[in-house]
Amino acid sequence: MKVMNKEINGENLFELAQTLWPINRSITGEGFLTSLKILMENGFEEMKLVGTDSGSKVFDWTVPLVWNVRDAYIRSPDGSVICNFQDNNLHLVGYSIPVNCKVSLSELQNHLYSLPEQPNAIPYVTSYYEELWGFCISHDQREKLIPGDYEVFIDSTLESGSLFYGELFIPGETEEEVLISTYLCHPSMANNEISGPVVASALARWIKSLPSRKYSYRFVVVPETIGSICFISNNLESLKKKTVAGFNVSCVGDERTYSFLPSRNGNTLSDRAAEYALDNFVEAYQKYDWRDRGSDERQYCSPGVDLPIASIMRSKYGAYPEYHTSLDTLGNVVTKEGLYGGFQIIRSILEIIEINCNPKVTNLCEPQLGKRNLYPKTSMKGNYSKEVKLLQDILSWCDGSNDLINIARILETSIHAVNSAVKVLASHDLIEFC
Amino acid sequence: MKVMNKEINGENLFELAQTLWPINRSITGEGFLTSLKILMENGFEEMKLVGTDSGSKVFDWTVPLVWNVRDAYIRSPDGSVICNFQDNNLHLVGYSIPVNCKVSLSELQNHLYSLPEQPNAIPYVTSYYEELWGFCISHDQREKLIPGDYEVFIDSTLESGSLFYGELFIPGETEEEVLISTYLCHPSMANNEISGPVVASALARWIKSLPSRKYSYRFVVVPETIGSICFISNNLESLKKKTVAGFNVSCVGDERTYSFLPSRNGNTLSDRAAEYALDNFVEAYQKYDWRDRGSDERQYCSPGVDLPIASIMRSKYGAYPEYHTSLDTLGNVVTKEGLYGGFQIIRSILEIIEINCNPKVTNLCEPQLGKRNLYPKTSMKGNYSKEVKLLQDILSWCDGSNDLINIARILETSIHAVNSAVKVLASHDLIEFC
Amino acid sequence: MKVMNKEINGENLFELAQTLWPINRSITGEGFLTSLKILMENGFEEMKLVGTDSGSKVFDWTVPLVWNVRDAYIRSPDGSVICNFQDNNLHLVGYSIPVNCKVSLSELQNHLYSLPEQPNAIPYVTSYYEELWGFCISHDQREKLIPGDYEVFIDSTLESGSLFYGELFIPGETEEEVLISTYLCHPSMANNEISGPVVASALARWIKSLPSRKYSYRFVVVPETIGSICFISNNLESLKKKTVAGFNVSCVGDERTYSFLPSRNGNTLSDRAAEYALDNFVEAYQKYDWRDRGSDERQYCSPGVDLPIASIMRSKYGAYPEYHTSLDTLGNVVTKEGLYGGFQIIRSILEIIEINCNPKVTNLCEPQLGKRNLYPKTSMKGNYSKEVKLLQDILSWCDGSNDLINIARILETSIHAVNSAVKVLASHDLIEFC
Repeated sequence: MKVMNKEINGENLFELAQTLWPINRSITGEGFLTSLKILMENGFEEMKLVGTDSGSKVFDWTVPLVWNVRDAYIRSPDGSVICNFQDNNLHLVGYSIPVNCKVSLSELQNHLYSLPEQPNAIPYVTSYYEELWGFCISHDQREKLIPGDYEVFIDSTLESGSLFYGELFIPGETEEEVLISTYLCHPSMANNEISGPVVASALARWIKSLPSRKYSYRFVVVPETIGSICFISNNLESLKKKTVAGFNVSCVGDERTYSFLPSRNGNTLSDRAAEYALDNFVEAYQKYDWRDRGSDERQYCSPGVDLPIASIMRSKYGAYPEYHTSLDTLGNVVTKEGLYGGFQIIRSILEIIEINCNPKVTNLCEPQLGKRNLYPKTSMKGNYSKEVKLLQDILSWCDGSNDLINIARILETSIHAVNSAVKVLASHDLIEFC
Repeated sequence: MKVMNKEINGENLFELAQTLWPINRSITGEGFLTSLKILMENGFEEMKLVGTDSGSKVFDWTVPLVWNVRDAYIRSPDGSVICNFQDNNLHLVGYSIPVNCKVSLSELQNHLYSLPEQPNAIPYVTSYYEELWGFCISHDQREKLIPGDYEVFIDSTLESGSLFYGELFIPGETEEEVLISTYLCHPSMANNEISGPVVASALARWIKSLPSRKYSYRFVVVPETIGSICFISNNLESLKKKTVAGFNVSCVGDERTYSFLPSRNGNTLSDRAAEYALDNFVEAYQKYDWRDRGSDERQYCSPGVDLPIASIMRSKYGAYPEYHTSLDTLGNVVTKEGLYGGFQIIRSILEIIEINCNPKVTNLCEPQLGKRNLYPKTSMKGNYSKEVKLLQDILSWCDGSNDLINIARILETSIHAVNSAVKVLASHDLIEFC
Repeated sequence: MKVMNKEINGENLFELAQTLWPINRSITGEGFLTSLKILMENGFEEMKLVGTDSGSKVFDWTVPLVWNVRDAYIRSPDGSVICNFQDNNLHLVGYSIPVNCKVSLSELQNHLYSLPEQPNAIPYVTSYYEELWGFCISHDQREKLIPGDYEVFIDSTLESGSLFYGELFIPGETEEEVLISTYLCHPSMANNEISGPVVASALARWIKSLPSRKYSYRFVVVPETIGSICFISNNLESLKKKTVAGFNVSCVGDERTYSFLPSRNGNTLSDRAAEYALDNFVEAYQKYDWRDRGSDERQYCSPGVDLPIASIMRSKYGAYPEYHTSLDTLGNVVTKEGLYGGFQIIRSILEIIEINCNPKVTNLCEPQLGKRNLYPKTSMKGNYSKEVKLLQDILSWCDGSNDLINIARILETSIHAVNSAVKVLASHDLIEFC
C-alpha cells in the first residue's frame, strides 16, 4: 500500500504511520515482515531482506526462534473475554508460548503485568529469551478481576526460521557512508516504534531525490538490539572502514521537544553536525548524555565497534509518561507536525554533513579579491559589506584543518552562508578541498 | 632632518610625527620615499630599500604603477577653489588618474566621496587597482555645492617604476628573529599612519642601544597589504624558519586605551609575551579576536604563511571615530603621552621576549641553597624570606618545559623577579638553559 | 616496646605516639635510631637500616656529622637553671656544638630564639649545616631574663658516623611499587613529627595483614630532606621504573581538617586516587597547590626525579598555629580520633589504588546479560534495577582506556560499587584487564 506517492509532509507521514499501526510486530515473525513490506512501498523500495537463522551465534547472542500469534485471550469466570489480543496486541506478552488451560485467579496473577502508577495503561512486556506466557492488563481492570477459574488461550508458535532486517544502500559519489538505523519490533505504539521507520523512510525518499550526494547512505530497519547486533556482525569491518556518520532514528513523532543523545565518543562528525543543527535550527532541545542511552546506539557505539552514531529524537524513550504503554498512540502522542519536525531536523543534519568539507586556500597571503569583483573598487571606511568580510574571514580559516562546521562556529554565522561563500571562492579557484 | 638625536621621549616622538605629517604618501611614489628618508635619519639609519617592478606578480597580486601628484583641485562655478590638494592631501582620491576637464555638478557628484554621518570630516579614499579619479570632501561642503560647470584639475602621473619597502636588519646573538612591521602608505593621518613608523623607529633606536640582544631584529616599513605581500614573497622560507615572534605596529599614538589583537594561532610567543605585559603593565586593555584584524597581520598570519605576528595598539583602526578621516590629527587624536605609551608597551613586550628562556635544573633533588648563602643558616618558622621561597619555587618548575612566562604565570609573580632569580641560580650553576 | 599488638585503633596509635614522644630526635644520632627501633617493634618489624657516611656527597648535598646530646642548660645569674634540655628537648637548637662558658646577657641574646607573636611557645630551631650553638625559649621567659653572667652548658658531640633511614619492602603480586615516605627527625612535637611515622607503621601493619596485594609496598622512614635525598640517590633508576604511586605521610594526627597537596605533575595515579577518596569519603578538605609544599615531596617530585608522590594530611605543616613549637603536643593537637582518621583516609586511598584497573570488554556489542541471570527475564519499563543499569554502564566504558577511578567519576557512583560490578563481570568472562 503506497501512501507516500506525494511530497513529504506531515499528512502523508501520519498516513503511513496509521497504515503500520495495527500490525502485531515483534523481533521476528510475520508482523515484522508485513510492516517492512509496507515501508518498501513507501521509500524503501530497493530494500533487501537479510536473514539470520534461529540458533545462530552472533557475538555473545543466540538468534531466537520465530514467533507468530494467531489469537490470544482470557475468558473470565463470568464468561466475558478480557485481554483480547484482537483488541490490542499489547495484551499479550511478546514471545508468549502457546497455552490452552484453565487457571485459578491466584495462579493467573503470576502471569499478569500491570502498572499500578498508570492504572489505565496496558504495559508493553516481552520475554524473548526465557520461555513463558503472560498477559498485560490495565491495573484498573486487574483490580476488578473476580475469583474463579480463567480460561487462558494463546495460539502462538515458536519455530525455527530466520530473524530478518531490511537494508537499503543508496550509492553516492564516494564510498564513505552515512548510516541510518531504525527499529521495527514493537507492536502498536506510536512514538516509540512507528515514528522511527516512518521518518527514516521519508529520509530515504529525500536522499534519493537529491540530484547528487557526496556520501553513500545505508538504511537499516532492524529488530532492536538483536537485529543491530546481527547487522554489525555481518558487516563489522566494512562499517568501521566506511561509516563517517550516522544516526539512530527513534521517537521522532511528538511535538513536545527535541532531544539529542551523543555518541559514546561524543565528538564525532555526527555529534558535531547534530549539535550545530540543534543549536541553530530549533528553539530548544534537551541534551542527554551517554548514560541515558537505550536503543541501538548501545551496540553501534560499544567498545571495539565504536561507530559514530548519535541519536536525534523528539521526546526520548523513557522520558515521556506514555512510553512503552498503550497510551503511546497516534494522535495522543504522535502528530503530523511532530513527525514532520522529526524529519526536518534529521534532514537538516544530513544536509550539513553533505556540505561539510575542509577547504584550503590555493594562494599564500590574501588573494586579490578586487580583480574578481569580490571587493569594492574604492576603499573607504564603511563601504565594504558583510559579504566581503565573510569571504575574507572564511579564507583566513581555510588552512585545511577546519571544516565548515568549525568555521561557522568560529565566525558565529550560518553554515549555509559559509557554504555559499565557499562555493564562490571555489568557483574563483581560491580554495581547494582536502 | 634628524629630530631624534636625544633620548626617546614623548616630545621627540611627537616632533618626528610632525615632520612626517604634511607629506602626501601612497603605496608608491615620492611621498613614501621622502617619508622613509626622514625615518632613515631618525632610527632607521641602516635601512635598505627593496623595490619590486610595476607589473610584477607577487602571489595573487600584480604590483601597480607608480603614482605621483603635483597638484589637484576643483574650481567652482563661482570661481572659488575647493578640494585643494595643497590644503589637505586627503581631498584627492588615492591613485586618481590625471584629469583636466569641465563637468556639471551632477556628473561631478559621481566623483565625490563624503561621510554623511561625519559631515565635517574629509574621508580617506583610494583606488589602487581600478583606474578612476575622485575627490573627497566634507559632507557639509558637498551639500553647499551650487549648480553649474566645475573645472576639475588633477596633475598626477601613473608610470612604470618600483614599489618600495624599507628593511632594517639588526643582528643579535642568534639567527632567530623578531619581526617588527609597520606601514607608511597613508597621507596626512596621525594615529592610523604616522604613529606606527614613529614608534617603530624608536624601537629600532632602543634595540640598537642595548649592550647585547639575544634575538636578531628585522624591521620593515611597507606600503600596507601589497608591501607586506612583496616582503613575504621575497623572504618566505627564511621568515618561516627564523621568525620566533613579531608585531604589526599600527595605531599606537593616542591615549585612550590599549588594544591587543592576537595572531591567528593565538598562542605564539608573541601572544603570550604580549598578554603577559598587558595583563601586568597597563591598567586595562581591549582584547580583540582574529575576526577584528585589518592590517598586515592578514598577510603574515595567512594560511601557509603562519608567522607568529600579533598586534599591539592603542585605539585600534576602525574602533575610533576619527579613523580614516581628516579628523585623525596630531594633537586631536595623537599625543606625546600616547606615542610614548605605545613605545613603552611594545618595548616591555620585547624585553620579555629577550629575557624569556627555558631554564632546567642541573641537579636532581633540591640543591643545598644554604652552602651558597641563599638560605638562612638556622631553620625557624617565619625566618625565611619571600626571596628564598621564590628561588625554591622557580627551581621546582625548571624542568625544561616551562619558560619564564609560564613560571611567572604559575607563581603569580613578576617575570622580572623571576628573571632576576633565574640569573642568581644560573650564577651558581644551579640551572642551565635549553 | 611493642604497643601495637592489637587491632589498629585510635587508642593504640596514640599509645605508640606517647612512647615516641620524649625522645630527642634529629636527622642523625641515637634519638633517631631509638625511635626507629620502637617503630620496628610496632609495624615495621622487617625494616632495614640504610646508612650513609658523614661527608658523603649525595646529589648537591654533603651528609653532615652525627649529633648526640647528653645534657644542655643555662644557669641564670640567680643560680636557677633555665632552658633545661632535660625538661624539653626543644630548648636546644638542633646540631648545637658543645659549649661550656660564661656569657653576659647581651651576648647570650645572640644565641636565643623566641617567637614574640607566640610568647608562651618554645620554637623549634635547627642549624644542621652551619656550626653554632643556641637555645630556644619562650618569649615571656626571655623578657624576664636579668642582667649578669650566664653559665652555658651543652654536652653534645658532632662526630663522623652514618646518617640512617629505615626501609621496609613488602612484596606484592607485581613488581610495581607504592612508596610511603615519612620522616622521624623532629624532637618532641606531635602533629608535625610523631603522627607521620605512627600512621605509616599502622599502614604497614594493615598492608601485611591483607590476604593478597597487587602492588609491592616500600616504606621509608627518613630524616627529612637529607634522608629522602639519600634514599633517592641510592635508588633513583629503580624508583623511577617501579613506582606507580606514593604518599608523603606527615601531620596526620589532629582532628581539625583534611588536607591534600598534589604532586608536582598534579594528575598522577596518587593524585587521582587521593582526590577521589577525599571527594567521597570525608566531609570536607583543603586542597593546596604545589607552591604550598614543604616536606619530602620537594625531593620526590623535583625535576628529573618526578615520582608520583602526593601528600595527604590533616592540618598541614605551617597551617596551624602550634606548628614547629612546644605547643604541638599530644592531647593539645594530636588525638586518638585524629590519628585514626589520618590512618583511615590513607588506607582508603591505598584501597582504591589496589582495586584500580583498566577493564576491557571481551565481546563486541553488548553481551547477553539475561542468559547469565544478570538481566530480568521479562522486559517491562521500570523493572530493571540500578544494579543492572550499573553493569551495562560499566561495560560501555570498558574500552581499556578508562580505569575504575575514571568510570566511577563518569558514572557519578562509588568506586567500590564499580569494583564489585567489575568482579561480577570478570567472573562471567565479560571483561579482561589490560
